[in-house]
Formats: sequence, C-alpha cells, structure tokens
Amino acid sequence: MFKKRDNIKEVEEGKYLEPKFDENGLIPVITTDFKTGDILMHGYMNDEALKKTIETKEAYYWSRSKKKIWHKGQVSGFIQKIKEMRIDDDQDSIWLSVDIGVGASCHVGYRSCFYRSIPLGKIKNDQDLEIEFKDKKKIFDPKKIYKDEPNPTKL
Amino acid sequence: MFKKRDNIKEVEEGKYLEPKFDENGLIPVITTDFKTGDILMHGYMNDEALKKTIETKEAYYWSRSKKKIWHKGQVSGFIQKIKEMRIDDDQDSIWLSVDIGVGASCHVGYRSCFYRSIPLGKIKNDQDLEIEFKDKKKIFDPKKIYKDEPNPTKL
Repeated sequence: MFKKRDNIKEVEEGKYLEPKFDENGLIPVITTDFKTGDILMHGYMNDEALKKTIETKEAYYWSRSKKKIWHKGQVSGFIQKIKEMRIDDDQDSIWLSVDIGVGASCHVGYRSCFYRSIPLGKIKNDQDLEIEFKDKKKIFDPKKIYKDEPNPTKL
Repeated sequence: MFKKRDNIKEVEEGKYLEPKFDENGLIPVITTDFKTGDILMHGYMNDEALKKTIETKEAYYWSRSKKKIWHKGQVSGFIQKIKEMRIDDDQDSIWLSVDIGVGASCHVGYRSCFYRSIPLGKIKNDQDLEIEFKDKKKIFDPKKIYKDEPNPTKL
C-alpha cells in the first residue's frame, strides 16, 4: 500500500510516502486545530487507518484500548475534517491539522486533551507533582454522549 | 518519582502528575515552537528524561536509535528552552512548547521535522504516493554539524 523503505536518503528527502509502523503496526499521530494551532490530541494509526484518512479526508485512528479502527467523532459527532497532513523526516510520525468546528476532541469533554500544565523547576522527591488546569470548560458531558461505553483511559 | 496510577478519575481530572510509560518505558512527546505554534518534532522521554526536563527547563529525550538520554541541541547548539509543558487526559503523552530562537529541531537541517505534506484523496493501489515539500530552506548543513555521527533515521 505504501512504498517500501529501503534507502535512508529517500525516506528523509525523497518524494514518496514510506511510513514506518512500530512493532505493533502503529504510527503516532499529532492532531492540531487548524484555526488556533492548539494540539487537540495524540493518537495512533495502523496502515488501514492511515489509508482511510488519506482517502476520506476524515481522521481515522487505531484505538489501542478498543483494539479496532476508530472513525473519530462517530459517537460524539465531532468528526475531524483534515485540512492538512504532514509526515516527519524519518516518516515515523504524522501531523494532522483538522477542522472540528466548535466541537471537542477529548473524551473527558474538553476541547483539547491537553488541558493541564506541568509546573517547571526543582522536583522534591518525597512530594507528588501537582499539575495545573488550564482549561476548565467542558464542551460536552461525556456521560450523556458516551453513555455505557467503556472509558478508553487505562491505568 | 511520579505518583502511582491507581484511579482513572484521578488520572483524568486529578491534580497530580501520574505519567504512563509504555512497555518500553517511554512516553511520546510533541514539541511545538512557542512563537508560531508549528510542530517541530515528535519524540519520546523515559522517566529520567521527563524529570530532567522539568527540573532544568530544557528538553531531554530518550533517543531510541542511540538508546540513551539525549539533551536536545547538545551537538547542534539548538537547545530547546521550555516555555510550557502539558500532559493529556490519560497522561500518556506530553506537549512541550519551546523556544529554539532562530534554530532548527530537525537533524536533516530544516526548522521543523514536518517539512513534507501528504496529498489527500483517492489512493491508486498500484502507484506510490508522492509527498510534497512545504519547506525547502535548511537552517544548517547536517554534514557540518553532525560530522561522523550516525544518522538517527532507521529503515
């Protein structure tokens, strides 16, 4: 489906898509809001999700918790329409710039999954590190949207 | 070093850092330019790299090709000064917003690792997919900077 990786120069500076999938057959994906540039989420694709995303111009991921292809927004309605798609130097990660309108991408209900900030500076070894909420406004109530679906967050 | 993950609600909406490292002891990291919001790179940290990054306010990663902690910019001079650091909902990925001045973050010489765009639309199965260069200007010549160091890109 994608060109074989057989030459490092070609992977880095060539003109063909030669994605590298990891030992689990996945490639990490960074998804940003095309309007604000904010990072919405970090996910994974397998080769089928990558192909479907390119062809349909809507984001498909591989859900590691559900172990299946996942058309983002199918349940919540917040489909991610692809505005641009990029690949990195060694072709082992993908950047999606997407339009989700006024929707959300986080299953907890926030617009972005990255709603908490990590403080910088000296860590005291005997003390848990407190993080700070930067976004407190939920776009939706997960209980109403996902109902009895299992929570994808795993310990 | 970091609080134990023993409660999903606490991981998602609690106030403590409880990062999840994968089966290789790594957590993926997205790094963006704090001025433009552009994604510079996608990397990984182990627990030591995460701790050093928080404490020193400079980005440390785990190099999967060199199999060691890597103080980004040590060779090229393009140290990444952390402006903000965030963690996602299930605490299994990190977002760094960094200052690299007029420098670059890509070992090939470009400012960002994501210098090529993937075209959208129907894939012809018998044809390799061509990608498009969006950034053609190199900030530095990798041969001059890295000299005989092995290329981190792997097939």
